[in-house]
Amino acid sequence: MAMHPAVTRFVPTPDQFAWTFGGCEPAMRIQPGDVLDLYTEDAFGGRIRSSGDLASRSIVYPFVNPQTGPFYVEGAAPGDTLAIHLIDVQPARDWAVSTTVPLFGALTSTKFTSTLQPALPERTWVYVVDHVAGDVVYHALDSDYEVRLPLEPFLGTIGVAPAAGEARNVLVPEAFGGNMDTPEARAGTTVYLGVNVEGALFSIGDGHYTMGEGEVCGVAVEGAMNTLLTVEVIKSVYCEWPRLEDDTAIMVAGSYRPLEDAFRIAHTQLVRWISEGTGLSIMDTYQLVTQASRSPIANVCDANYTIVAKMPKRYLPADVPWMGGAHDRLRRRASTIQATT
Amino acid sequence: MAMHPAVTRFVPTPDQFAWTFGGCEPAMRIQPGDVLDLYTEDAFGGRIRSSGDLASRSIVYPFVNPQTGPFYVEGAAPGDTLAIHLIDVQPARDWAVSTTVPLFGALTSTKFTSTLQPALPERTWVYVVDHVAGDVVYHALDSDYEVRLPLEPFLGTIGVAPAAGEARNVLVPEAFGGNMDTPEARAGTTVYLGVNVEGALFSIGDGHYTMGEGEVCGVAVEGAMNTLLTVEVIKSVYCEWPRLEDDTAIMVAGSYRPLEDAFRIAHTQLVRWISEGTGLSIMDTYQLVTQASRSPIANVCDANYTIVAKMPKRYLPADVPWMGGAHDRLRRRASTIQATT
Amino acid sequence: MAMHPAVTRFVPTPDQFAWTFGGCEPAMRIQPGDVLDLYTEDAFGGRIRSSGDLASRSIVYPFVNPQTGPFYVEGAAPGDTLAIHLIDVQPARDWAVSTTVPLFGALTSTKFTSTLQPALPERTWVYVVDHVAGDVVYHALDSDYEVRLPLEPFLGTIGVAPAAGEARNVLVPEAFGGNMDTPEARAGTTVYLGVNVEGALFSIGDGHYTMGEGEVCGVAVEGAMNTLLTVEVIKSVYCEWPRLEDDTAIMVAGSYRPLEDAFRIAHTQLVRWISEGTGLSIMDTYQLVTQASRSPIANVCDANYTIVAKMPKRYLPADVPWMGGAHDRLRRRASTIQATT
Amino acid sequence: MAMHPAVTRFVPTPDQFAWTFGGCEPAMRIQPGDVLDLYTEDAFGGRIRSSGDLASRSIVYPFVNPQTGPFYVEGAAPGDTLAIHLIDVQPARDWAVSTTVPLFGALTSTKFTSTLQPALPERTWVYVVDHVAGDVVYHALDSDYEVRLPLEPFLGTIGVAPAAGEARNVLVPEAFGGNMDTPEARAGTTVYLGVNVEGALFSIGDGHYTMGEGEVCGVAVEGAMNTLLTVEVIKSVYCEWPRLEDDTAIMVAGSYRPLEDAFRIAHTQLVRWISEGTGLSIMDTYQLVTQASRSPIANVCDANYTIVAKMPKRYLPADVPWMGGAHDRLRRRASTIQATT
Repeated sequence: MAMHPAVTRFVPTPDQFAWTFGGCEPAMRIQPGDVLDLYTEDAFGGRIRSSGDLASRSIVYPFVNPQTGPFYVEGAAPGDTLAIHLIDVQPARDWAVSTTVPLFGALTSTKFTSTLQPALPERTWVYVVDHVAGDVVYHALDSDYEVRLPLEPFLGTIGVAPAAGEARNVLVPEAFGGNMDTPEARAGTTVYLGVNVEGALFSIGDGHYTMGEGEVCGVAVEGAMNTLLTVEVIKSVYCEWPRLEDDTAIMVAGSYRPLEDAFRIAHTQLVRWISEGTGLSIMDTYQLVTQASRSPIANVCDANYTIVAKMPKRYLPADVPWMGGAHDRLRRRASTIQATT
Repeated sequence: MAMHPAVTRFVPTPDQFAWTFGGCEPAMRIQPGDVLDLYTEDAFGGRIRSSGDLASRSIVYPFVNPQTGPFYVEGAAPGDTLAIHLIDVQPARDWAVSTTVPLFGALTSTKFTSTLQPALPERTWVYVVDHVAGDVVYHALDSDYEVRLPLEPFLGTIGVAPAAGEARNVLVPEAFGGNMDTPEARAGTTVYLGVNVEGALFSIGDGHYTMGEGEVCGVAVEGAMNTLLTVEVIKSVYCEWPRLEDDTAIMVAGSYRPLEDAFRIAHTQLVRWISEGTGLSIMDTYQLVTQASRSPIANVCDANYTIVAKMPKRYLPADVPWMGGAHDRLRRRASTIQATT
Repeated sequence: MAMHPAVTRFVPTPDQFAWTFGGCEPAMRIQPGDVLDLYTEDAFGGRIRSSGDLASRSIVYPFVNPQTGPFYVEGAAPGDTLAIHLIDVQPARDWAVSTTVPLFGALTSTKFTSTLQPALPERTWVYVVDHVAGDVVYHALDSDYEVRLPLEPFLGTIGVAPAAGEARNVLVPEAFGGNMDTPEARAGTTVYLGVNVEGALFSIGDGHYTMGEGEVCGVAVEGAMNTLLTVEVIKSVYCEWPRLEDDTAIMVAGSYRPLEDAFRIAHTQLVRWISEGTGLSIMDTYQLVTQASRSPIANVCDANYTIVAKMPKRYLPADVPWMGGAHDRLRRRASTIQATT
Repeated sequence: MAMHPAVTRFVPTPDQFAWTFGGCEPAMRIQPGDVLDLYTEDAFGGRIRSSGDLASRSIVYPFVNPQTGPFYVEGAAPGDTLAIHLIDVQPARDWAVSTTVPLFGALTSTKFTSTLQPALPERTWVYVVDHVAGDVVYHALDSDYEVRLPLEPFLGTIGVAPAAGEARNVLVPEAFGGNMDTPEARAGTTVYLGVNVEGALFSIGDGHYTMGEGEVCGVAVEGAMNTLLTVEVIKSVYCEWPRLEDDTAIMVAGSYRPLEDAFRIAHTQLVRWISEGTGLSIMDTYQLVTQASRSPIANVCDANYTIVAKMPKRYLPADVPWMGGAHDRLRRRASTIQATT
């Protein structure tokens, strides 16, 4: 009979929400190998539930994207990397919402891309989740059109305490991860984040039931989520920018502005990572990445924009133990857990 | 027995190459409905054929991306839109090349993102095409790694004469199309370009046998191409930015700098187009695009950067005759032609 | 008795206006050393004369910024540089106008920084010129505030035919000069532009009676101008980007997007120019430029944005003959002309 | 006989340096009206003193720009604004240094504008201060050129704890002020910063003896400084972005990326501030700012870039009590202090 780790369930109360990466007391201390079953409230703290609930009335900035955590991982020290394997990411509700938010989003002026124009109208859309069909249902507000979109749940935010003594608002993505809004943060993915403080202090939140690329209006289909995850500490290896790995690809997320700098960060880091892992020269890797990588845009609406550079493993030498083989180890452990839960 | 149009083959001699969009005499006058079978030389004019041929020695700027064309389409007038349907886009050779070019590409300083650093090394990679397997073969230069990448041929450049009396170098993508480097310009796609001058004066070139997103090093797997296409003029409808349509999606290409402006252009245009075509309100469309569109990055290396905003038709009301139903008409005509050629 | 060249007066009729840099037949052929006395119509072709004349009704895009020229300079060949010395730049009227233009300017979304928001209101302000006091008078439209601003006339556009066979709309600044909107293009300045086509084909226009930095709303105090200038051809020296020189400073104008790329171009070029001219090493020049240069923003509203990198001559080794001493030669010639006209 | 406040001298020991804005315990509690005489160590903590001391060997990131402070101002509460009046800013040494830092600065790739190119060479320049002449002396390293640059001392960093629970590294400028690197932070200027936490927690540092615009290589002429300042709390008025005022101008500093967003922030805020202060309509103010404001670039090298929008008071209605007349009050108090110290 296989041994398997206990699963620790944690459902934060509203007063336990974290609103920054860094600068928060840990919600819990865990050991590498522990399995957490975490509830995350939606980006609006569950306060927007009908098309009459508008963001500007329901929410007080900066209390958006409440985080579950942070978690102090025993043994994680600055200079290490934390590997977080997402075993499962499932909607915790049968509804979700999206909104426009005044002066937020990609197709409006914002507080950073500031103009003298008035904000766009504020609206709220409620989505029904059809768990059986694996769909969420979009209803137009101004006409009777409706359509089913695929249920593709992921975590908008996953991050650790930043470097350099910083604490960052939970709306920000950067080198510490955070509000990257990448659909790659889904079940089956391992996220690697460089550890900047003792215990790493990771947290998650901002569950999305589905989203197009770029999170164009600034708000995905936002919903509470249950996430099953486990972690490992990779000692003395430090990821400067978030790396992600699933069974078919390795990825780096770059988050900055302008958008081409996010692209440059992600792809430069990917080239260097592949070159180190495979022994291919930098120039040969630059060429291979040029012809074979994908560059999904995660968001063009946050404090920093995020692009993921993604290389299918099938184009790389086989059997490279990326990040010391952490993903495969975590994947195997996850399969045990899934079988028993 | 079905009637079908004659197919006109055109293979330009080097002195017939066009090097700008706009400002060139037409290579040929055609009628809407004519079918052209066009040869395009590779981006280097066929002058780089081995790893010893370096771009800076083989090419004299701006003589890159030679265009086949331009073609004067009878009846196309300013204010109309030209629909170009790509019936087939096939490699004309069993080899192709890629290179680095000094101070060109996304992961180097360039003549626009100018720094005091020296250029990266100049290298040339030769790819062998395996038509049977549908692959191109990458060989590393500095080690013995090789890998097969999928043969996915498309046209890097497709454009018309620009507005406002401009003539633009063939390395530039903008509202007139041009060097967009989007893999969506493949067989089966219809490209819609607003007509700015009598006859539209479209041309094509810069065939790519395969390419990752972003054309990271600035050069795809470049090869000569044979393209079968036909055109239609949509009277009195003007596309401000290039639109693309295939059987499953409608798209808009935005090309500008910084990269977020390319994103804004593409997605704002897509929202407006869908709203006009479906009767959905702008805000409802903004929401639907947010949750369901894709945003593939085409290039982050050219004079302007290009992003495509892409909406699957399955999320839109059925039976909308996008651009007056031109794509379906052209598709049907193409199927006749393919059957007979 | 000093000999001095004849002065050629040229006042274009509306059908003689040029609307592009490049792609136009020359208005006149001149010899180096000739002195031209040129009339330029205002940016609106003189069609906006009262606060009731709105840009969108009075102007048909792209017919803005009519150019006087182009002038074919005998002996100017690709690879040379044209030195244009502005002897005098004087208002040709006692009034001028400014406006807002829908979706144009720095504090609004535009056709490139595209959003779903409506345009700002369209307004027109008429300025009275007080030649004696050297002022223009601003009147508020919505209240009775008025204030005098200094009359500081300059040419918004000055450029040659672009490289690479391009023709660019007169709203564009780039390596060929064009719509740079820098107040440095004033009386006493020499503008150096690399020659791309036989005869250089330079033109001027878009006179501004005064302007803040950045041309924030996209429109300066626009007025017809009389400009006295003379030119010289510097053989076999090619300025990649526009250089400017007056009695106290040398400058380079960089025009691109994003704005930091304009900054990078201007300052990289300035560092290289100073290093070449003085023998200072690149790193020593980088340091000196860091501590002593100025970086006036010219515009953040055009198709490309423009920044000027400016180094006071007093911080540089004395007696460097910048651009072969052309400015001093032209200045001396100008003083003769001014004395006699 | 005039009463005057006591002057409190504070010289931090190295273990008292603050390395973030926000997230630090106060070094001291003060009352509005108190006068502080503060010593700030140079950006390198005084560790670089000769051309043989290189930044990468002398400094461990992020321990750059040590701050003196933070100071807890009694009575300052979130929603207020802190007015900091710089009475005097004087070099504390007769030497200063500048360096290049690998992958930092405007004319190199950086960790955000990331490329595959190697870093520029690392060098250190030592400047001698001539207090009598009011100069600093630049010596080239690779040749024997030297030149005097004007001694124009200012504080590169001045900031409060950020909003939203953030703590930011001292290299960052943003809405809370911070590493803005604007020469406007000189003797005679009042800096207004919105208060985000009880006590405001302001700090200063990064003294510059002189600097060109843009801080091109990323490092000014860095030196220890003695700063005499006093503060006032403006209750219930909140500056979203840093405002500055001296006897002749009002200003707003915008800090973000890309550089045009810094420009947009600064100028949008300036337009709104002037409109509120004068009763001019937004559109009339937009026009007046367009023709009369200046836009000095502060830095294009930091984590965010900074531009200052600056309007001379002489173009605005007289006797507007900007920020409740705080600058004039503080100026009068300062004149008393200067007379007695």
